Amino acid sequence: MTDIFAFALGTTRNDAAGAPLDCFFPAPIMSPEPEVVAAIAAHFKPGVTSVSCETARAYAAATGTTANGTTTALIESDMALTAVVLHEDTPITSTQEAYLKLHLLSHRLALPNTLNLGDIFGHLPNVAWTSEGPCHIQEMAAAQLAALRAGRNLEVFSVDKFPKMTNYVIPPGVRIADASRIRLGAFLGDGTTVMHEGLVNFNAGALGPNMVEGRISQGVIIGAHTDLGGSSSTMGTLSGGGAITISIGEHCLIGANAGTGIPLGDRCTIEAGLYITAGTPVSQLDEFGGITLRKARELAGADDLLFIRNGQTGRVECRPNRKAIELNTQLHKHN
Amino acid sequence: MTDIFAFALGTTRNDAAGAPLDCFFPAPIMSPEPEVVAAIAAHFKPGVTSVSCETARAYAAATGTTANGTTTALIESDMALTAVVLHEDTPITSTQEAYLKLHLLSHRLALPNTLNLGDIFGHLPNVAWTSEGPCHIQEMAAAQLAALRAGRNLEVFSVDKFPKMTNYVIPPGVRIADASRIRLGAFLGDGTTVMHEGLVNFNAGALGPNMVEGRISQGVIIGAHTDLGGSSSTMGTLSGGGAITISIGEHCLIGANAGTGIPLGDRCTIEAGLYITAGTPVSQLDEFGGITLRKARELAGADDLLFIRNGQTGRVECRPNRKAIELNTQLHKHN
Amino acid sequence: MTDIFAFALGTTRNDAAGAPLDCFFPAPIMSPEPEVVAAIAAHFKPGVTSVSCETARAYAAATGTTANGTTTALIESDMALTAVVLHEDTPITSTQEAYLKLHLLSHRLALPNTLNLGDIFGHLPNVAWTSEGPCHIQEMAAAQLAALRAGRNLEVFSVDKFPKMTNYVIPPGVRIADASRIRLGAFLGDGTTVMHEGLVNFNAGALGPNMVEGRISQGVIIGAHTDLGGSSSTMGTLSGGGAITISIGEHCLIGANAGTGIPLGDRCTIEAGLYITAGTPVSQLDEFGGITLRKARELAGADDLLFIRNGQTGRVECRPNRKAIELNTQLHKHN
Repeated sequence: MTDIFAFALGTTRNDAAGAPLDCFFPAPIMSPEPEVVAAIAAHFKPGVTSVSCETARAYAAATGTTANGTTTALIESDMALTAVVLHEDTPITSTQEAYLKLHLLSHRLALPNTLNLGDIFGHLPNVAWTSEGPCHIQEMAAAQLAALRAGRNLEVFSVDKFPKMTNYVIPPGVRIADASRIRLGAFLGDGTTVMHEGLVNFNAGALGPNMVEGRISQGVIIGAHTDLGGSSSTMGTLSGGGAITISIGEHCLIGANAGTGIPLGDRCTIEAGLYITAGTPVSQLDEFGGITLRKARELAGADDLLFIRNGQTGRVECRPNRKAIELNTQLHKHN
Repeated sequence: MTDIFAFALGTTRNDAAGAPLDCFFPAPIMSPEPEVVAAIAAHFKPGVTSVSCETARAYAAATGTTANGTTTALIESDMALTAVVLHEDTPITSTQEAYLKLHLLSHRLALPNTLNLGDIFGHLPNVAWTSEGPCHIQEMAAAQLAALRAGRNLEVFSVDKFPKMTNYVIPPGVRIADASRIRLGAFLGDGTTVMHEGLVNFNAGALGPNMVEGRISQGVIIGAHTDLGGSSSTMGTLSGGGAITISIGEHCLIGANAGTGIPLGDRCTIEAGLYITAGTPVSQLDEFGGITLRKARELAGADDLLFIRNGQTGRVECRPNRKAIELNTQLHKHN
Repeated sequence: MTDIFAFALGTTRNDAAGAPLDCFFPAPIMSPEPEVVAAIAAHFKPGVTSVSCETARAYAAATGTTANGTTTALIESDMALTAVVLHEDTPITSTQEAYLKLHLLSHRLALPNTLNLGDIFGHLPNVAWTSEGPCHIQEMAAAQLAALRAGRNLEVFSVDKFPKMTNYVIPPGVRIADASRIRLGAFLGDGTTVMHEGLVNFNAGALGPNMVEGRISQGVIIGAHTDLGGSSSTMGTLSGGGAITISIGEHCLIGANAGTGIPLGDRCTIEAGLYITAGTPVSQLDEFGGITLRKARELAGADDLLFIRNGQTGRVECRPNRKAIELNTQLHKHN
């Protein structure tokens, strides 16, 4: 019997031609125990399959506690179900598989940058996400007219390949002030608050606890107790950014309107309004008054650095960071 | 008979266990006249109580014009009502009380920083705000499944302690391009336009008229005819900011992508892209060519200052502001 | 027979007093061929008129293929219809005319800055855009109460003169991560992706293909293959900006948190975090080591420029741009 990399049972919504628009997997699993592997193998074919309720019930009976309440309710609901069985973490070959991997990330079963998301853009349809559910772009005109005639307001929230996370997964212990800015596939650790100006792409995230008022680009991870100030930026690799994948360690503060194009270690601060790119010349000041000129990329990943732009000389400077940022406990203790 | 600090009659939505999720108070009042105090005292107990329609009608009859149309309609609606009677402005002890105070701010009955909001985080539950109303986080899985089975789309707009203002209060004379960015408890004065990039936290606001395309952090107030450019930042005290509560006077302009960590007086300008923090060394130029080096915090609250970063020297400079910003009248006259 | 500048057939939603709140025109046309001009003239009066289904059917029969599927369906729907016939592009005199012009822009029938939008603010009512459709501000209290009594959640998305584009027009070949940030009247060319932090005002746009993670202010146009980084700013002329209307050529990159107050030609780059205003003194470096000091406005519209702030001297510099930005093809090919 082969291993199972990931498995989920859920529902698929299709367009008029029967092509999948999205999937909802309430309780995906990764690397299950041998007895679960056996039950999956006994009931489901590899890849994506439509599943009868009888099959789903038989699987649930065989695994017992594996299925959570939602999955059980799903099975009892007599809706058409979709099973996805992945034996290996290979590039994505279907919409359902893409949704499974995005769910794994948002359910905190996999960290960003640990899944093979190859060709994900090619397997996610561009969908109009409306108040009546996902709708194929070509079917929108008819849907708008039908709503108009019936006196309903059809609200179009987004036109995108990726849906928003909270319609599929609400991880415990988080606050998200504006859910339209968190894509499915974001990883939000326990104790994370994302304010209205925060933004988290798929395959990116905050390990928690964190206060996120800035943008976490695709591939970027920020460590525990790190704070992204309002409109702060973590440079991505997809568009305009460089080739370095950014990560930020623990107890860092990226100030409001600041940004970084280099990875940072622990206890680093970038002052409000300063953007450090990989090529920025940085004057590093040591504790004895010495100054060394470096490219910012040479400082990538280092701990205990404070970056400022000197207000008298305009010089970008880096000093030992004497005061690590303490997140406001009042804000965090009630997550 | 004791005084009454604040009073409201409204509705409460509860979770499955009967705990309050939110309250809607269409016409809260503060420091009422003696005859209203008498009517309140005659019909309602102090604190939070459930109220019968008979009681509410008797109160409405006793006060006559005090109740506005919505309150009257509410009373006539035969819905279960909630009364909140506060004799003093003490720290918050219940969800209903928190909602009353947030309503007072958004109804412009109290200015930011004038109410005791102590322990508000502790008394606001973290709620999933959905297209079907507020939902306890633990009840979301069941709600999602029920919607799915019924073919409805359950949209989750936010997962937060604070709801958005416009679902409860739309103050007259404002425009709000993206309502998801204004929390209940924001104070928006008459003639205020908040563009899509604007953001106003609870206990914060714009006295009006104003053009807000930047972020007004908790505790921050901006004066009349002041303009916050796109993505501009007013540093808060909760997370990463300092201990100084920021306020900005009248006829100021904080440029796009600029920010301030110090309070400003009237007729001040910070040029686009410049962030002034309390510790920024600022070279103050007087009209006779003299230069004085100051920390920005020494300039806190001063009038008629123009802050720039010199493009030749990188030095942060402050000069007398010869041209106060005039807000575009075309934009404002149609509020 | 006079010419016809623009024509549309659609629906109008009114407030309780019968005043128009919005219009939906599924297939507006501009400068039609003579035979269509004749058919319009034969069936509709100039300006805004209510139209019977018989008239609409007779017009559709006369023009045949002019009406697209949605218009035909609209005509067959027996809904009350609105016709708008404009002989000339004069200042706006009605809500319906304003909506027609905004539709023309979003349907890509007219480029930004080519239509007479005079007095548009005066003819667009300030509307509460809710989950149950547009609602007059004065009618909101009653609408909220009615929803509450019926157990429905009334979501208020925005309070504004301009609605969001996607509820009226979804141009082909675009992705829009957060539709609340694109106003009706935005022009989004084929192949344009607007990420969550992107924002496009009315009478503004991207010719496509583009990656937009910044703000396109009213009147601003960006050329093909130009990339606006996260939170980047194009200075508008309405509020706080100067008198110069900004445009950006092709193959430019405005870095994250950067901004421009001058128009740019082709293949220009502004580094992340740098804001160029018209008055910024810029040291222009040529390829032979020469330096010329200029005001940024003298460089307006020039090609092949790279703007940075020197990290050692704080000086704003401009050099020949050796590397034009190539947009990530993976991101764009699946639009």
